[in-house]
Amino acid sequence: MTSAYVHGYDDREVERLQDQAGTLVDLLHHDTAYPAGSAVLEAGCGVGAQTVTLAQRSPGARFTSVDVSAASLAEAERRVAAAGLENVTFQQADIFDLPFAPASFDHVFVCFVLEHLARPVEALAALGQLLRPGGSITVIEGDHGSAYFHPDSDAAHDAIRAQIELQARAGGDANIGRQVYPLLVGAGFGDVRVSPRMVYVDGSRPALIDGFTRKTFTAMIEGVRAPALAAGLLDAERFDAGIRALHRTAEADGVFCYTFFKGTATR
Amino acid sequence: MTSAYVHGYDDREVERLQDQAGTLVDLLHHDTAYPAGSAVLEAGCGVGAQTVTLAQRSPGARFTSVDVSAASLAEAERRVAAAGLENVTFQQADIFDLPFAPASFDHVFVCFVLEHLARPVEALAALGQLLRPGGSITVIEGDHGSAYFHPDSDAAHDAIRAQIELQARAGGDANIGRQVYPLLVGAGFGDVRVSPRMVYVDGSRPALIDGFTRKTFTAMIEGVRAPALAAGLLDAERFDAGIRALHRTAEADGVFCYTFFKGTATR
Repeated sequence: MTSAYVHGYDDREVERLQDQAGTLVDLLHHDTAYPAGSAVLEAGCGVGAQTVTLAQRSPGARFTSVDVSAASLAEAERRVAAAGLENVTFQQADIFDLPFAPASFDHVFVCFVLEHLARPVEALAALGQLLRPGGSITVIEGDHGSAYFHPDSDAAHDAIRAQIELQARAGGDANIGRQVYPLLVGAGFGDVRVSPRMVYVDGSRPALIDGFTRKTFTAMIEGVRAPALAAGLLDAERFDAGIRALHRTAEADGVFCYTFFKGTATR
Repeated sequence: MTSAYVHGYDDREVERLQDQAGTLVDLLHHDTAYPAGSAVLEAGCGVGAQTVTLAQRSPGARFTSVDVSAASLAEAERRVAAAGLENVTFQQADIFDLPFAPASFDHVFVCFVLEHLARPVEALAALGQLLRPGGSITVIEGDHGSAYFHPDSDAAHDAIRAQIELQARAGGDANIGRQVYPLLVGAGFGDVRVSPRMVYVDGSRPALIDGFTRKTFTAMIEGVRAPALAAGLLDAERFDAGIRALHRTAEADGVFCYTFFKGTATR
């Protein structure tokens, strides 16, 4: 399958790949749609990676997307404009000090944000205050400790652990996905329901091999090489062996598994 | 939810628990049904844990269930008889030396067997010879390396690794689930499709907390205490700390994750 990917595809293969390219978005977002007229807060929109998907899937809802970074917001605005969407308003703000009145929103959406916060329960509780009674919150987080693969490799696990350790030193938690249920319960929400969304990649799924195993997960771990070595978490030889082992799982007889967790709850 | 479980339930709760109690069987077997008149080989039936489910779900199929252990077969026969099933024949045989002519079966079913074999690809290839052309094989395996949980615990991972190491020393592989795709491809099967079946347990799922986290997974790890200590894989204090940590994941704010892999393919 790998060689087929390198050398191109016929029309049927292209169609299949396009289907699969949408798999991750579908996996995470297929069951999120907000009613027309509802007011939705996207807390921590970053560069708008989820904003376009959200706003497209709920064209009648009004989104307020906030982020602490002006640079990220500018990129998010560019993406949303490029997609021709007009139902999103952007605002720069800190998730712990949001400039909205209590009960301002019908729904809150938080994706890949809690992993970076030292006090995720407090953040969720603050977001809950912005929800009208009966309003909903949706939380999506990854979990790097959920990654396992074939062939297995201690060096690959060491490289992944270096990323987890760096994120912990920055006050975050890269293994937060598995904690979405207790975090939402701890923040006082009701009707908490969490469903895991597992990405399973084997040789029959070339678009996921390239799009997820290589270009999403392995690229992310490769990206911490300099800080991981600078922090002395492991040496260059070990780190590079880990990266090679992750690329090895992307060969035709390799397998890669990773799980996101999606939680919903009501105020 | 834990205290609710200790202190009993109202009727609605009992109904929900009964639903959940069936979850694991449904998760693994809901999409396996054989046509009336088809001949199915269950290779390695053990004490018949899957045989009753299989035969009930395909009442018109004829099952031949084999195992190398006469004692296990006797227990499997007892269970099948107790369930009132008459579509199963038992036979004692070695999976590498099965007393059947080539192409004798329409379908082969193998569940929790490959994990114990030193040569799983050869076993699958031998089973493939017993299939008629176009016949199907179904393989289900767990993967102990897929277990992760909250709160996380190095001691718990050490205890789990001891079980994995003991199984490896016995010639098996407790992390085989993730390898089902390459094993089936390597054994020469076509149309190989693998789907992960993740068991996700949080405080909202008391039947799975008790039935899976405590009585299935943690009990299995507890069961290797004596051989793990005898082999010097870790000391008693560490092992017992690991078991306590696994029980800790079964409290109301704990989370436990484990994944089975189910593969189907054709000859």
